[in-house]
Amino acid sequence: MMVDQCTVMAGAAALPPAEGSASPDRYQRGLDQLRAISGPQGAAVVESLNDIAPDLGRYIVEFAYGDVFARPGLDVKTRELATVAALTAMGTAAPQLKVHMQAALRVGASRQEIVETVMQMIPYAGFPAALNAISTARDAFAAA
Amino acid sequence: MMVDQCTVMAGAAALPPAEGSASPDRYQRGLDQLRAISGPQGAAVVESLNDIAPDLGRYIVEFAYGDVFARPGLDVKTRELATVAALTAMGTAAPQLKVHMQAALRVGASRQEIVETVMQMIPYAGFPAALNAISTARDAFAAA
Amino acid sequence: MMVDQCTVMAGAAALPPAEGSASPDRYQRGLDQLRAISGPQGAAVVESLNDIAPDLGRYIVEFAYGDVFARPGLDVKTRELATVAALTAMGTAAPQLKVHMQAALRVGASRQEIVETVMQMIPYAGFPAALNAISTARDAFAAA
Amino acid sequence: MMVDQCTVMAGAAALPPAEGSASPDRYQRGLDQLRAISGPQGAAVVESLNDIAPDLGRYIVEFAYGDVFARPGLDVKTRELATVAALTAMGTAAPQLKVHMQAALRVGASRQEIVETVMQMIPYAGFPAALNAISTARDAFAAA
Amino acid sequence: MMVDQCTVMAGAAALPPAEGSASPDRYQRGLDQLRAISGPQGAAVVESLNDIAPDLGRYIVEFAYGDVFARPGLDVKTRELATVAALTAMGTAAPQLKVHMQAALRVGASRQEIVETVMQMIPYAGFPAALNAISTARDAFAAA
Amino acid sequence: MMVDQCTVMAGAAALPPAEGSASPDRYQRGLDQLRAISGPQGAAVVESLNDIAPDLGRYIVEFAYGDVFARPGLDVKTRELATVAALTAMGTAAPQLKVHMQAALRVGASRQEIVETVMQMIPYAGFPAALNAISTARDAFAAA
Repeated sequence: MMVDQCTVMAGAAALPPAEGSASPDRYQRGLDQLRAISGPQGAAVVESLNDIAPDLGRYIVEFAYGDVFARPGLDVKTRELATVAALTAMGTAAPQLKVHMQAALRVGASRQEIVETVMQMIPYAGFPAALNAISTARDAFAAA
Repeated sequence: MMVDQCTVMAGAAALPPAEGSASPDRYQRGLDQLRAISGPQGAAVVESLNDIAPDLGRYIVEFAYGDVFARPGLDVKTRELATVAALTAMGTAAPQLKVHMQAALRVGASRQEIVETVMQMIPYAGFPAALNAISTARDAFAAA
Repeated sequence: MMVDQCTVMAGAAALPPAEGSASPDRYQRGLDQLRAISGPQGAAVVESLNDIAPDLGRYIVEFAYGDVFARPGLDVKTRELATVAALTAMGTAAPQLKVHMQAALRVGASRQEIVETVMQMIPYAGFPAALNAISTARDAFAAA
Repeated sequence: MMVDQCTVMAGAAALPPAEGSASPDRYQRGLDQLRAISGPQGAAVVESLNDIAPDLGRYIVEFAYGDVFARPGLDVKTRELATVAALTAMGTAAPQLKVHMQAALRVGASRQEIVETVMQMIPYAGFPAALNAISTARDAFAAA
Repeated sequence: MMVDQCTVMAGAAALPPAEGSASPDRYQRGLDQLRAISGPQGAAVVESLNDIAPDLGRYIVEFAYGDVFARPGLDVKTRELATVAALTAMGTAAPQLKVHMQAALRVGASRQEIVETVMQMIPYAGFPAALNAISTARDAFAAA
Repeated sequence: MMVDQCTVMAGAAALPPAEGSASPDRYQRGLDQLRAISGPQGAAVVESLNDIAPDLGRYIVEFAYGDVFARPGLDVKTRELATVAALTAMGTAAPQLKVHMQAALRVGASRQEIVETVMQMIPYAGFPAALNAISTARDAFAAA
């Protein structure tokens, strides 16, 4: 998968930002963050959008990773666990929850910390939200 | 407020668990957790239920605090920040979000960490969720 | 309040259905259901819409009450408790939850049954949803 | 597919409205709207309900299409784009979102307008909602 | 399936509650409730968690069934129909909705009552929520 | 209000983007869009964040208005009506819904078009969502 992924990243990096909104530093900083945090899974999401909504991928790189994830004041591991918590509670984003569970592992969270973050959601979002997130965790851990 | 709160806590502690479901250790452990984590605000929520749904308060003490918050594997500060993230994203629980923002401060999170947890939600739950949570943070910080 | 309400109901009944969609039987059946189930509170909601969105009120009468609430196969009390459950779990409809808690009382549910319906939501929608619904129940019971 | 669809529509049209709620004009108007707006996909949804909940299909025809979609004051294309926006933001209705994306194409929206409606949701409902809706758009466009 | 299920139940019953939170009566009462209400499907959910989050299964048994479902003041059939209503309206819990539709049948609800509970949700949560719940009902009834 | 608002806008424009993420063109383009679309209400929201989360305001200007609202392919009026639809359906963002209803008026939507956008949500998100949005519309129209 490494080779494919390198192609993916090269392709994503080569995509020129839309005219009139050039911010090469934000894009590059976001791409570096995305590579470091989400690895191949995150890059694959961005790449998969090139045929239909390339700017959606660009915004994920620039805004979600270049702006928000790069912020000081909260470490990246806690940001990922907070994201796992929110996507668990929302219950509408299983594919994204899987990506962020894998990202949490990548930035240093243990499987136990991820499972405990899901357990912490029971009193706030209920058992079905936790049950579905645990199913996603099983997939994420198997693919990690 | 200490005096009132002591009365509150004494009252809450004095509430006998419903017959047939006695688990004094769970209740006491939950009450200790609730006192340590949520302070007067959390106890006030439990107390306020005695006239209409006392078992709702008992379950919060026993299950949310005695069972879930007392679990090993994730520190209490991260549990509170995960809870702040989830309630921000859900957008349906402003009073509870305020209580948990104050609890986060109490267990060692900084105001910046709480604000950053809200900022981290923008890409996942959108600006309105973050805006409303920041309004709640302003209230929580003012009352802290 | 009876006199005011009679005026309200007369006014609502007098509102002519929009041209091209006349279904006087549905409207009358819905109005009868609305009166029997939701009483003054439901009628007040419909009346309050006349200045800005009268057809929203008409659809509530015709569709929600004339079509759905009038269906056989499930008694009206269970329909109201199911509605209380759903609005509790959704967490976005406090004013409507209050109306339906009062309606549940009107069609024969006890306060305990309403509180228990809210309690039943804890494992599925979490404590904040239940806490906010109990606050609404307190308002509904005080105004009943 | 045309032949099957004609059978479907004939079958749906032949379903007699339940006794006591006859409104043949509403039903026919709704069926005409459904045919014009949603085409085979919408009709298939209604038809698929005949074995288990035929009145759910009837209400979709009568209320959603006969009452709401037939209203003046907002053109059908904008109604469909508003529906695409809402279902994107809600994140709980992928099958219905696909039907309405195809309906939007049918009533004159371009693929770009549909994608832009999804993009417009990013700031309000977050990236996961937009990502999942773009996946649905890919399916809808491929099947159109 | 009976044999497998007995093994499942024996296995689940044999799982020792975590040290420090022993409440054998609650666990046993919950397991009895789970067996009586949800049958093999509910037990399978609990069993499936043993590899990754066994305490999630334990909490479902102890809290959802041992505490909440065992409460007086509302009959079990109405509790299940209220749960069906809530999960229909939430739209994020199809697997759990299927389990509770089968449980509703088991505790005495008819198929018509389940379908009507879904129909009752149309005015409160919209057609997509009802359509998806009817799909789930078809699965639940076929597997019952 | 014009004078106050000029002060507000001058203050907002004067806020220097955070070091390391300078994108003066995006910020200025966003500010122009925000002024044109949301008027004083939108600017007031941004300004109100300066004491606690100034970057949240900056992201609204840069990303929501500078990036997303400035996109080609869908006119601003349809973007605002799509936003009104989504916020109505979500039901968790009354303050933001009011701002966008006023913005819709500002960019050329009529009151009827806004009310019809809310009416269009009934079949997809239910009556409570529409009722609460109509209450917000009444506030928005009164303040416009």
